[in-house]
Amino acid sequence: MIRRPWRRPPAAGSDPDDRAAAADDPEAVRTVAQDRLAEALRQWRAAFGAAHVHDAAAALDRYARTTLPHGNRALAVVRPGGLDDVVAAVRIANACGVPLYPISRGRNWGYGDACPPTPGQVILDLGRMDRILEVNEELAYAVIEPGVSQGRLAGHLRDIGAALWLDCTGAGPDASVVGNILERGFGHTPYGNRVQFVSGLEVVLGDGRVLRTGFGHYDCATAERVYPYGPGPILDGLFTQSNMGIVTKVGVWLLPAPEAFTQFICLVHDGEDLGPVVDAVRRLRLQGAVHSVVHIGNDMRLISSSRTYPLDRAGGAVPLPAALREALRRELGVGAWLVSGGLYGSRGQVAAARGLVKAALKGPRRKLIFLSPERLDRAARLARLARPARLAGALTARLGRARDLVSLHCGVPTGQFLSGAYWRRRGGLPDGFPAEADPAQDGCGLLWLAPVLPQTGESVRDLLGIVEPIYAAHRFDLLMTLATINERALDAVLTIAFDRDDPAETDRADACYRTLFEAVCAAGYVPYRVGAQSMADITARGSPVHRDVVAAIKRTLDPGGVVAPGRYDPAAFRSDHPASGAAP
Amino acid sequence: MIRRPWRRPPAAGSDPDDRAAAADDPEAVRTVAQDRLAEALRQWRAAFGAAHVHDAAAALDRYARTTLPHGNRALAVVRPGGLDDVVAAVRIANACGVPLYPISRGRNWGYGDACPPTPGQVILDLGRMDRILEVNEELAYAVIEPGVSQGRLAGHLRDIGAALWLDCTGAGPDASVVGNILERGFGHTPYGNRVQFVSGLEVVLGDGRVLRTGFGHYDCATAERVYPYGPGPILDGLFTQSNMGIVTKVGVWLLPAPEAFTQFICLVHDGEDLGPVVDAVRRLRLQGAVHSVVHIGNDMRLISSSRTYPLDRAGGAVPLPAALREALRRELGVGAWLVSGGLYGSRGQVAAARGLVKAALKGPRRKLIFLSPERLDRAARLARLARPARLAGALTARLGRARDLVSLHCGVPTGQFLSGAYWRRRGGLPDGFPAEADPAQDGCGLLWLAPVLPQTGESVRDLLGIVEPIYAAHRFDLLMTLATINERALDAVLTIAFDRDDPAETDRADACYRTLFEAVCAAGYVPYRVGAQSMADITARGSPVHRDVVAAIKRTLDPGGVVAPGRYDPAAFRSDHPASGAAP
Repeated sequence: MIRRPWRRPPAAGSDPDDRAAAADDPEAVRTVAQDRLAEALRQWRAAFGAAHVHDAAAALDRYARTTLPHGNRALAVVRPGGLDDVVAAVRIANACGVPLYPISRGRNWGYGDACPPTPGQVILDLGRMDRILEVNEELAYAVIEPGVSQGRLAGHLRDIGAALWLDCTGAGPDASVVGNILERGFGHTPYGNRVQFVSGLEVVLGDGRVLRTGFGHYDCATAERVYPYGPGPILDGLFTQSNMGIVTKVGVWLLPAPEAFTQFICLVHDGEDLGPVVDAVRRLRLQGAVHSVVHIGNDMRLISSSRTYPLDRAGGAVPLPAALREALRRELGVGAWLVSGGLYGSRGQVAAARGLVKAALKGPRRKLIFLSPERLDRAARLARLARPARLAGALTARLGRARDLVSLHCGVPTGQFLSGAYWRRRGGLPDGFPAEADPAQDGCGLLWLAPVLPQTGESVRDLLGIVEPIYAAHRFDLLMTLATINERALDAVLTIAFDRDDPAETDRADACYRTLFEAVCAAGYVPYRVGAQSMADITARGSPVHRDVVAAIKRTLDPGGVVAPGRYDPAAFRSDHPASGAAP
Repeated sequence: MIRRPWRRPPAAGSDPDDRAAAADDPEAVRTVAQDRLAEALRQWRAAFGAAHVHDAAAALDRYARTTLPHGNRALAVVRPGGLDDVVAAVRIANACGVPLYPISRGRNWGYGDACPPTPGQVILDLGRMDRILEVNEELAYAVIEPGVSQGRLAGHLRDIGAALWLDCTGAGPDASVVGNILERGFGHTPYGNRVQFVSGLEVVLGDGRVLRTGFGHYDCATAERVYPYGPGPILDGLFTQSNMGIVTKVGVWLLPAPEAFTQFICLVHDGEDLGPVVDAVRRLRLQGAVHSVVHIGNDMRLISSSRTYPLDRAGGAVPLPAALREALRRELGVGAWLVSGGLYGSRGQVAAARGLVKAALKGPRRKLIFLSPERLDRAARLARLARPARLAGALTARLGRARDLVSLHCGVPTGQFLSGAYWRRRGGLPDGFPAEADPAQDGCGLLWLAPVLPQTGESVRDLLGIVEPIYAAHRFDLLMTLATINERALDAVLTIAFDRDDPAETDRADACYRTLFEAVCAAGYVPYRVGAQSMADITARGSPVHRDVVAAIKRTLDPGGVVAPGRYDPAAFRSDHPASGAAP
């Protein structure tokens, strides 16, 4: 049996080795401290209306749906309508000793969705707080609440005619902008390292105090949204990947729409060519030829982008047989890897950058393509004229995919790039895909693991040497993307897509993830972010000093331990933590 | 009498209204807890050698020299040689109850130099810790200790032939790289917002524990120097502009030397033209035409760049009479403002950017100049041939100034731009200037105030409307620079240069600073950084929640309150603080 790298929380009423207990049996987590929970629910309903407090099984089931092998079901769901509601919710949580798990919109795909990291928490769903409070076109920023989705903000910018683009992730139009930023997610544009393009947080601390960071805590400071640091220590980082407080408002910087945009795509035929390509991309990033996040996806990311697993053609075998993988590559006209990035600027700047990209990435077994919105429009007109009609359809579909990619780089979110989550889903892509893509509700099995590595071909080869045998041993297809989150580091996103309706495959996915997690950490490729299931382990692997410092700061900001116990915080997994076993 | 906006610390043995007590009378701060200090000195000497522990008056005098109207003299100076020494120093400080004020190299010009914000502290001078531990040319970073000066790091990069440039500030070759970063200072290149170009801190906490931030606290994490955030909350910001710990090691990102570099300079003739120029610069920055920090200096910055106050020509009057100011402008061939920035990239990129700068900044009463190192070389050859020899000398001097500016943008630090500090110095610029520029040792009077404002012409006009009358009322010349620290904010650096040998002028400078401080804060232009004299006031002006949060975190990291009490921390100014009156 494979060693479990993470320790389960000592949750009363649930057997730590029986994952069904927490996820599937609501009664198991309701047996303890029912009275305290009941009192909290009564007070929350009195404070901001019964319509926004849910503890019916159907609602809890919906929130508990996850792409992970297992997730923790919440005790209840509370949906505040504004800052005052959040403060009231926190005060009540403290009075009753019931922990709150804040979610922005709960679309934390592949990392736990809306599920708390431990049982016995009440979800604080900030989805109703979806106001766009300000858009400043001159200084290129917006001030938004956590319930604002990327689709809504992008749509609003379009509606008001603002020449500003939102950096979007591939998580789909419905994902929260704030939620992703707080998880330090990354997008595709020059503003892709999103946490660096934020100015001023409003945070409700665990004891109900409201903190404004940066210049925001000075009366009338004019620079709150344009310069992220006020005088004195910078506190903002404490509220990302943490449980130090509940972020209720964020200033988000927006990219001024450039005069010109060109997408570059480089198809890399041979897998052995990846190292030199990574080194070339690093040089492009370091020299400032390319300012955007460059994504380098493998063939499986491309194959899975338009279809689910071809079980028939594979003769029932998993993972994809090598010959079939090769055949699908050929059918799609792709190679082993695909490099993709955006060039932004004036026409002259984009032309200059294009020349640099060409010089760096062209090669005998590579194909370099430049796409602009204008060029796509021309191609679409030609495709419609193509004969026979079948060819026209195929061309149009392929152009649609290219247009999705270009649009994503120009501030228009799409669910298209969630397709990898559906790879092993029975019944194929659902009807609503990609417009209504929701991997958790659609029953997908998805685990993401995102180790960070130096941006060198050598590191990439080393990482591949570690992960490929593990995927093979567990019989999963390796879907992998490498993203240049900055000029020096790569974030590898390793996808384990599995059939969640198959208990044996789900167990294999679980084991595969845990083995991968151990292996990449042991090799020094520590993830930049983890899912709900790895919170205890990732913190346990750090130094005791770091752990103690984080725990001590947590105690000062949330003495009752009511905010998201267990989220990037090992304290909740100790028996002496105030929230441990509080409710349950 | 002008109201004193800052509260003085209740220091035992010094009358808060008599600034001479702390600065000039060593006995006054030595009367209390002399036994505890003596014990600490004994233990420090035993721990790392008597040669590195100083309490002789001459040494303390030297460290107490400051460009401010008054500074706090330290009780002693301790000079650790490495991490273990720092840990030992902190443990002894705790055991004896003697606070330590860490300095990197003590060149915090205009903000207090090496002086602690309160009396009764022992300076922990990290200047001996000057190792360059690593230079990674592939990933473009260095790992350095706080004692490394910008001159030394730049020289080392040149010596090893690394094609990497250090972002330099105008503080001169002798200033610490780490010290400036921790104060969130800014330079001139695309890496000018220096605190964003750092990865991984090593910090000795107030109780002697050693914390490594980011990925650094994971064993063997490969991304420590390339990605600044490990999983979990970001702690780095806590150790900038704070007294939470003593930073002993930093990973600093370096700019890969570009294929091409061009300096642009725009002379703006009319003061009323500044607003449109600021708006144009903002658009250049926001659209990514210019990636570097753009500095916009007024005529007084230029006039003071090559000479001290022309007392004779002014007929003994201060400030500079309008007619003389106009005459000096004409002699130097400058206008009301000078805009200066760097274009970095490939030849094609720089050419494209140059076109954008030209389109944005050219105008009827402006003069736009582009300088490249190659063009300067050609001009220097021509200047040497000029006749008469006097003309050749003048041309060469002017070219030298231009070369300093270009060099600074290309990673070569110079003390030349400290000249403003010497403006009112009697006896003119000293012989060693600029190579050995040291405004504190050279007896300059200098106060810097650095309010942040939105990057708009309107904000700049508003700020000028506030500060100009205050300078006039206090009879000082307004030396002013506006720097585009990012794409949306401007950092105004207001210089009060005064004759420190003139007690009346020193008092006027003090009053002018305090009036300015009040006025800019009241108008919402809060400084990004303050001098030792404003620590209590800047924190007192923030919200109580922010203040309490900072104080609570401080208590968890430094329970004995031994690290730099009073540095961006109002707790030290309260009577219940452990370090308050501890030693003295």
